[in-house]
Amino acid sequence: MAELEIAEVFNAAKVLRDVARHPLLIGPTKINPQAKVYLKPENLQYTGAFKLRGAYYKISQLTPEERERGVIACSAGNHAQGVALSATANGIKSLICLPAGAPISKVEATKALGAEVCMVQGVYDDAYNKALELQKEHGYTLIHPFNDPKVIAGQGTIGLEILEEMPDVDIVICPVGGGGLIAGVAFAIKTLNPNVKVYGVQAEGAPSMVNSLKDGQRVHLDSVATIADGIAVKEPGSLTYDLCKQYVDEVVTVSDDEIAAAILKLIEQQKLVAEGAGAVSVAAAMFDKIPMAGKKVVCIVSGGNIDVTSLNRVITRGLVKSGRDATISINLSDKPGQLAEVCGIIGAMGANILSVRHERNSSHTQINGCTLRVEMETRNNQHITLIKKELKNRGFEVMKD
Amino acid sequence: MAELEIAEVFNAAKVLRDVARHPLLIGPTKINPQAKVYLKPENLQYTGAFKLRGAYYKISQLTPEERERGVIACSAGNHAQGVALSATANGIKSLICLPAGAPISKVEATKALGAEVCMVQGVYDDAYNKALELQKEHGYTLIHPFNDPKVIAGQGTIGLEILEEMPDVDIVICPVGGGGLIAGVAFAIKTLNPNVKVYGVQAEGAPSMVNSLKDGQRVHLDSVATIADGIAVKEPGSLTYDLCKQYVDEVVTVSDDEIAAAILKLIEQQKLVAEGAGAVSVAAAMFDKIPMAGKKVVCIVSGGNIDVTSLNRVITRGLVKSGRDATISINLSDKPGQLAEVCGIIGAMGANILSVRHERNSSHTQINGCTLRVEMETRNNQHITLIKKELKNRGFEVMKD
Repeated sequence: MAELEIAEVFNAAKVLRDVARHPLLIGPTKINPQAKVYLKPENLQYTGAFKLRGAYYKISQLTPEERERGVIACSAGNHAQGVALSATANGIKSLICLPAGAPISKVEATKALGAEVCMVQGVYDDAYNKALELQKEHGYTLIHPFNDPKVIAGQGTIGLEILEEMPDVDIVICPVGGGGLIAGVAFAIKTLNPNVKVYGVQAEGAPSMVNSLKDGQRVHLDSVATIADGIAVKEPGSLTYDLCKQYVDEVVTVSDDEIAAAILKLIEQQKLVAEGAGAVSVAAAMFDKIPMAGKKVVCIVSGGNIDVTSLNRVITRGLVKSGRDATISINLSDKPGQLAEVCGIIGAMGANILSVRHERNSSHTQINGCTLRVEMETRNNQHITLIKKELKNRGFEVMKD
Repeated sequence: MAELEIAEVFNAAKVLRDVARHPLLIGPTKINPQAKVYLKPENLQYTGAFKLRGAYYKISQLTPEERERGVIACSAGNHAQGVALSATANGIKSLICLPAGAPISKVEATKALGAEVCMVQGVYDDAYNKALELQKEHGYTLIHPFNDPKVIAGQGTIGLEILEEMPDVDIVICPVGGGGLIAGVAFAIKTLNPNVKVYGVQAEGAPSMVNSLKDGQRVHLDSVATIADGIAVKEPGSLTYDLCKQYVDEVVTVSDDEIAAAILKLIEQQKLVAEGAGAVSVAAAMFDKIPMAGKKVVCIVSGGNIDVTSLNRVITRGLVKSGRDATISINLSDKPGQLAEVCGIIGAMGANILSVRHERNSSHTQINGCTLRVEMETRNNQHITLIKKELKNRGFEVMKD
C-alpha cells in the first residue's frame, strides 16, 4: 500500500494523544465461555464513537489554505459528530449535509459541536451528492467517512493501543461498514505482528464487504436493512477494500437478532451501552462465528450512539426472548369472576400483570366467550410454562402462541 | 478513629491491585454545565459494583482458622456477589442468606460465583437474623456490608485512586446507603488532602444518614422506599456514622425522578448503565444539589446492577417526560374514515403510531361517539404540541391530558 505507512499511524497516535480518549480494555468477560474476551470500548470515546479519531487526524493535517476554506461531510451519524468536533477544535468551519429524515437528536448533537448543517431532501445518496456539489462550489475539503488514508490512519490508532496494552492478543474482532476502522486496525496490527488474527463483522442485511471479498471485486448492494445502521453501507471504499483484502483474515456476518442479543448482553453483563454497529463484534463472539477456543480476544465496541427509543425496543425484545415478558391468550366463557380467578392464579405464581385485554370478535372465539390476552413480567421461560400449566390444571383453556 | 488508619487503606490497595478493576475517570462530561464533572465508573468493576473491594480485602485478612470455617453474609444485591467472588477467589466457603423475594437473576449470579445460598422466608431483616443464627451455630465469619473497618478500608481505595489520577480534584460526590463507601472514601481523601470536599447523596425515600447527622445520633427509619434499592438502608452503621460525621462535608438527597433522569443521562450521554444507587451522585450534580461552579468534580458511579425490566421502565418514563413517547386522546364521532384521517395527519407530521385504542363507554364520551387513544413516538414536547394543534385545525376534538 503506497498510500498508507505505519509511520502515519504512529503520527496519528501522537496527534490524538491529548485529543481522543484512550479507553482501556475491559475484561476478561464471559462473552464466550471458551475464550478470554476483552472489549475495547470506543463507545466511551468523545462523541460516543471511534469516528473522532480519523476525522480529527485528517483535519489536523490540512494545509493552511484548506483550513481557511473549511470542510464538508455527509453523514447522519457518528462521522458527522466526529467531523464537527474536530473542525471546531481546530478552529475550522464545518458544514455537514444530512438527509432530511435524520433523527432530530443527531442533528442537534452535530450543531452543538459547532457545525453548520444542511438538510437535504431525499436519502443519504442525495445528501452525499449535495455535499459534492457544495464542495466544488466553495472549495471545501470533503472529509470522507472511510475511504481516505489519513482517516484510516486515525482509526488505526485503535490497533496500536490494543497491541500496546495486550501484546499477546490472539484475535481482534472489528465491525465493518465502509471499512475504515478495520482497514486501519488490520493494517496496523498485521504490520506490527502478523500472528494476530483480525476478523471483520458485518450485518447480514448489509454484507457489502463480505460479498466484495467473495467476488474479488467491490460489490454495490441495491439496498441494506439492519438495526446496525452505523454499518449499513452499500459499497466499500476502493482503498478500504484493498486493505481488507490484504490484511483481514475473514469477514463474517451476524443477524439482527444476534445483534440485539449482544446489545442486551453488554447492558446486563458489562454495563455498557452499544449501538447495533458497535455490538456486532460481540455478537460474533457470542454466537461462535469465529474460532476462538482458548484464545485472548479483543472485540472492538465501536460506538454507543443508539437512540433510547431503539434501545427500549431492543430491551423489550430481549425480555420477551428470555422469558421475562410474556403474553398469553386464554379462551374464557363470558361470565363474571373469570378474570379475577385468572389474575389470582397468575399473581400467586409470582408473575406481575402488565396489561389485560378482552377480545370478543376474533375468529377463534366462541360465540358466548372471549379471548383474554394477559401481558406479564415473568422470571424465565420455565416460569411461563409453569403458569400455563397451572392455568390448565385449574380448567382454563390456554391457547397456543 | 482508632479503628481505621490510612496505612490500612494503602494495604487494601496493595491487596486489590491484581484483583479489582481500577476503572479510570471518564470526562470531563457535560453533566453540570457550570463544572467539570468526571465519573469514577465502579459500575464497570467486576460484579458490577464497588462492593467487591471491601469484601475482598476483609476476606483476604482472615486468620487461617477463620478461612477454614468459611464466611456468611446477608444481601440480595451487590454485597452478595462481592462476598461470593472474594471467598471463591480465596478458596473459602461462603454462604449467603437472601430474603425469599430476591430477584432470581441475583440469586443465580451469586450461585454462579461459587457461593451457597440460603433462601429465608420474609424480608431482609429476617434473612439477616438467620445469618446471625447460622454464624453462631457454625462459627462462620460474618462479612458485614458496611460497618467493618476492613470493609471500609477496601472501599477507601476508590479515594486513593481518585487522588492519584486527579490530584487537583475539588469535590468528590458519593452515594450513601449504610455508609461504607463514603466512610472509606472520605477518610482516605480528607486524611491525604483536607481541601477536597466530600459530599454524600441519599435517596429522599431513604435518608437515614441525613437524618442521623441532623439529629446528632444514629436514626432508624421504619420504612424506606426508592428506586435506588442499593442504598435503601434503614440505619447507618456505628462506625460509618462516626466517620461520616467527622469527614463528610454534607449529605444531600435526590428524588426518584431525579435518579431516573440521571440513569437516562448516563445512558444517552456516557453510554454507561448505572443502577439507581449508582446514579444518585450524578443526579446531585445534574440538579444543583451541591455548589460546584467552576470546580473539578468526581461523581462515583457506584454500581450498574439494574435489572432490565426496571431499566426499561426508567427509559420509558424518560421518553414520556422528554416528549419522545406521547399518548393523546381524541373525541370522535363514530363514523367511518375518522381513524384513517387521524392516522394520516399524525403520520404526515412525522410521528410514528405505536398503538390505537377506542373507548366507547367512558363518562366523557358522547353517546354516538368514542374516545380514541393514540400512543406515538414523537420528537419532543414541541412536536406533540404541533400535532395536537394540527388535529384541532382539522376539526378534531383533542382532549386535555
